[in-house]
Parts: sequence; structure tokens; C-alpha cells
Amino acid sequence: MPELRKDPIIGRWVIISTERARRPSSFSSVGKRTSATMCPFCPGHEDNTPPEIIAYRPPGTEPNQPGWKLRVIPNKYPALIVEGGLNREPKGLYDKMHGIGAHEVIIETADHARDMVHMSVEEVRDILWVYRERMIDLERDGRLKYILLFKNHGEAAGASLEHSHSQLIAMPIIPKRVAEEIEGAKAYYDYKERCIYCDIVRQELADGERIVADCDAFLVVQPFAPRFPFETWLIPKSHQSSYIDMSDSEYVTLAGCLKETLLRLKLALNDPPFNYIVHTRPVSKDYQDFYHWHIEIIPKLTKIAGFEWGSGFYINPTAPEQAAEFLRKIDVHVVPEKVGPEAADRD
Amino acid sequence: MPELRKDPIIGRWVIISTERARRPSSFSSVGKRTSATMCPFCPGHEDNTPPEIIAYRPPGTEPNQPGWKLRVIPNKYPALIVEGGLNREPKGLYDKMHGIGAHEVIIETADHARDMVHMSVEEVRDILWVYRERMIDLERDGRLKYILLFKNHGEAAGASLEHSHSQLIAMPIIPKRVAEEIEGAKAYYDYKERCIYCDIVRQELADGERIVADCDAFLVVQPFAPRFPFETWLIPKSHQSSYIDMSDSEYVTLAGCLKETLLRLKLALNDPPFNYIVHTRPVSKDYQDFYHWHIEIIPKLTKIAGFEWGSGFYINPTAPEQAAEFLRKIDVHVVPEKVGPEAADRD
Repeated sequence: MPELRKDPIIGRWVIISTERARRPSSFSSVGKRTSATMCPFCPGHEDNTPPEIIAYRPPGTEPNQPGWKLRVIPNKYPALIVEGGLNREPKGLYDKMHGIGAHEVIIETADHARDMVHMSVEEVRDILWVYRERMIDLERDGRLKYILLFKNHGEAAGASLEHSHSQLIAMPIIPKRVAEEIEGAKAYYDYKERCIYCDIVRQELADGERIVADCDAFLVVQPFAPRFPFETWLIPKSHQSSYIDMSDSEYVTLAGCLKETLLRLKLALNDPPFNYIVHTRPVSKDYQDFYHWHIEIIPKLTKIAGFEWGSGFYINPTAPEQAAEFLRKIDVHVVPEKVGPEAADRD
Repeated sequence: MPELRKDPIIGRWVIISTERARRPSSFSSVGKRTSATMCPFCPGHEDNTPPEIIAYRPPGTEPNQPGWKLRVIPNKYPALIVEGGLNREPKGLYDKMHGIGAHEVIIETADHARDMVHMSVEEVRDILWVYRERMIDLERDGRLKYILLFKNHGEAAGASLEHSHSQLIAMPIIPKRVAEEIEGAKAYYDYKERCIYCDIVRQELADGERIVADCDAFLVVQPFAPRFPFETWLIPKSHQSSYIDMSDSEYVTLAGCLKETLLRLKLALNDPPFNYIVHTRPVSKDYQDFYHWHIEIIPKLTKIAGFEWGSGFYINPTAPEQAAEFLRKIDVHVVPEKVGPEAADRD
């Protein structure tokens, strides 16, 4: 049973999940890349994964059989597990509870060698749409407080399999970084009666120099105080606290915007490893007025010394204004070739 | 001029230091290891570094000439610079100031191939002693609020040169992680009228299962809620808010304790890359009652996905109780051989 434990000083919860250590990639300093023939996420290998939770597949195809376009499965090595009560209890001055929650994998495409920048806008929209479907479903579970959606791309960014996928972790606590955003946004709202993210959008549109792309309902910017070179935020221009609250057409716009942004980063930085994280409000609607959902994209370009996690002190060698200018100039009409053995087999 | 910028939402300051991008190692995904003949930290290459601030050297040897045992120099590519005023100013809803401060390198030994685990306790004590000397000197500068001392060991932990060294950054802000510790420790103190770190030491001594080593005045433990496998804390047993407040003999005890702890980690984990960070109180004495200095050692064993920095949510596959047991069992009398071309030349 994984365990959630709270640091008594700074209040951060962590998961101690010894089951995860059984993953084939754990602790190996050099990971192995799987080919499509070995990949558990490829069609024909459905029995290598737990049974699917949901899949987008044409009528007439069977669950857990090939034919699907997109597939959501429980993580085979889950950080949190679904069954059980929270059993929160003290241990001297410490706090712990059972590691209850959900850990799912969104296999974004059947094509081993296809990533988001090669997909059609409709394919990306389907991925964003299934994020929403899973969030809505999991928000019904009264034990859960937060649903964290993220993507690791490239081995150096923590992706243990190269087949394009995202992950969802639904948890009974609010992760520290989101809690900090909530606290800061609430303090600003209490003082100004305005959402700080809405004010940031306003100022970024006025300043202009940190804008990467203006995609209608969404703004793509380099933040004013980025921790990392080319750290990129994608923010809805009008106030919206949750990722699940968008209109149907907004998911299409977001799909085009996200695809274009990832393409800019890929072309500008030679396909960098990256992570993106959807920052949305917690399950509770209490945060509606002052929290504003957004996506943070973090390319892994520099060696981040542990001292930076350890101190919370970041030295960034690239000014966001320069990074934004560089990304704006990328010609996004040049889509790079697909790679890998399967590229030729697919349309 | 480097610039300090504040994230308006969560209040974290970062340094935008474009000068740092000129470092030879920036953005190279595969770094090169220097041999002793090329190393700017080796004796005979003193003119490759800025002039020394202080050195421990025998009488009769000249500054910036060979003969030294330990040498402190300004970082050639400083994240912060010494000259100038802070010029704090708003920029719309953002805040920035000049990147004023100091960035120094402590070259811990003249021997290119010698690291802390090979040194005598007296040699390690000298390193700890010079940390103190530099802190006391820099605390006199009224512009500075915090002095961050850290060590990156191994390329994967951010060390761009393998010659054993530590770094010191003195800055006009309190880094976020320390600010969080202060806030948490103060809340506990306000409620309990006790230092939370003192209570942690008490509970760890009682529980026993997370103790790695008990070194007289210092306790080495795996924390209850570690972010990373084998994250290790070294805490003074009695209340002491600042690293500079120790008695002379305590620096000797600490030297032995730190050396032994690093040796345990090296033997247990096959010389892992690691970072250590000295967490001490800010320059101001306001924090004296409730802050408690300590050293955090973070071995880099797992691939940390950016999503973990991005969410503040950590999944740790190793229970601290298991890690502590494993480290306790290491026979620290087996000191590994020195490595490298110079090993045979030195005693």
C-alpha cells in the first residue's frame, strides 16, 4: 500500500510508493528505448497493459483489442491505488495516510512514432477531450482533492516509454505548487478583487515582448520570472478556473495552440525533452473566483542541480524576452519528418 | 547586469543571468570531463581563475601561486555581482531588482582526484571552517539577506568541473525553500513554543528507524517525508539557528560526521552524483529562536521528471526506513581507492 506522508515543516505531502521501484527503468542510469515490436503501448500488445478504462475506437472493434485511436489505462506501476479508505493518522509529530487515488496513462495514439506535433488538430483535440472526460469522472470520487495531468516527453524528462502518452494522478491532497498558486492568487484577489492571472494576461498583451503566440482564446507566453530557459505558459485569456469548463470549440482552439507551441519548441531547440503540466483548480469549486487554469511547459535544457530543488533558488541563463522572440520567429509551417520504423506505415 | 525577478503569484525570486550562458558547459547535453592538466582549479593554473579571496596556504607561499591547500575564488561566471545598488522597482504588476550579491567557489583541495571521502577529518574541517569565514565576512554587507552554501558532486548533479569544490551565493533575498521552512517553523513555534527541528530530533532518536548515524552533537537521518530516495539530513542535536554559531570542536565533529555520511552514500550507491545544501538562518538574527540549521544531502538516483518541480508533487520509490537501514549497515572503514592520474602522487 503506497503511503502519503507530510513534511511537518513545510507541509508538502509526498508519496512513498515502493511498488514503483519494480518498474524496469528504476534506478538505471541509462534507460533502454523500446522499439515498436516491444512496446506495451502499441496495438497488438493490449494484454501487456491493465484493461482499458476508456478508448476512442471505431464501432465494431472490441475493448482491449487493436483498432483504437486513443486509449486510457490504469498505470501498471501505480503511485496511488484506488481501493481503500484514507486512514489519516498521526505518528508522533508526523502525519500520514494511505496512498489512495488513481494513476492512469493516456496512450495518445496507436502509432509508436507519432507525437503531438505530427498529429492533426482533431487528434490532439481528442487527447484534450479525454483528459476532460477522465477529470469529470474522477471528480465524483469524494476522497480526491486534486487531479494532476501531465506529460513527460523524452527520456531525460522522465518518460520511460517513448510511445506518446500522458499521465493523470488523482490524489487526496492538493500538490504543494498548486497550493502555493492558490494562496498567492487568493491574497491578490482579497486585496484587488481581481484574478492575478487575468491581470498577467492583460499586462503580457500590453508589454508584448514575452508573447510566443496569440491563439485567439489563449495566450502563449514566457513568464516574467521563469525558473528555466524557455519555460512556457499557455493561459486562457478570459477567466476560467478549471480545465473542464471550456466550451467544445475551445478544446479545438487549445489543440491547435498546444500543437503549435510544442512545434515551436521542437524546431527551436532540436526536439528537447520536456514536461507539461495542466494546472487546474482543485476538485472543490471554492477556488472558482481567483484561480485560473493554465498549462506550464518546461523544456529540459540545462542540468538542473539538486541545489535548485533544495533551495528553491533558480538561476536562469536565458531572458524570457529573448526566448519569446526566438520562438516567435520559428516558421511553424515546417513540420519535421516523422521518425522511427513505423513512420512509413501510417498516414 | 544579472536581474532578480519575482514571480507575482507564488513570490519566488529567480535570477536571470545571461552572462552564465557563456559558460562552456551551458546547454551541452553531454559535458566533457577535464583532466588535471586542463583543470582551472588545479595548482599551476591559478591565472585561469579570478584572484583568490582567501586561501589556506603555508607561510612563504604567494597569493595566486601554487602551494595552497584550499582556495576561495570569485566564480568566473557569477550568477550575481558585487558592485551596485539593488534598485528595486515595479514593472506593472511585476517586481525586479539588480542581481547584486556574491558568487564564490571554494576549491576544497589542491588534488584534482581527491574528494571529501578521501580527505582527513582535519582537511574536511578546514573546508567547513572556510565556509564559516566567508559567511561571517559576507554577513557584514547590509544589502545581503541570505548566504547559500552548496556542493554539486558529479556531472549529473550539475558539477561542471570534477575537481572537488563547493559554491557560495550571497543574495539580497531569502530563497523560497528556506522562506517556507521559516514560515513552517515559526507557525510551530508560535503554537508550541518549541523548535520543530528540536522536536524532530527528539522523535527520530525515539523512533530510531530512520537514523543513519548518531555522531555525538549531530544526528544523520532519512527524513520522514523525503522527496527522493536516500535524501539525507544532518541536524545538530541541540538548538542552533546558524551554521556560524558552532564551537571550534563542533566543526571537527561535523567534519567527521559529514565525511562518514558521504562515504556511506558513496559505498551504498556506487558513487552517486549528489548535492548538499547548508540550510542556515538568514543574515538577520530575527530567526534565532525557531530556525535550526541543517544540511540536506540529495543523491541523484532517479530521473526527476520536470513535472515534479512543476507540481511540487514527489513520488519516492524508497521508504526512508529501508534506506536508513541500508546506510547503517555500510562498513565505513572501507575507504575506496582514490581515482585519477594524480592519485598515486599524493599522500
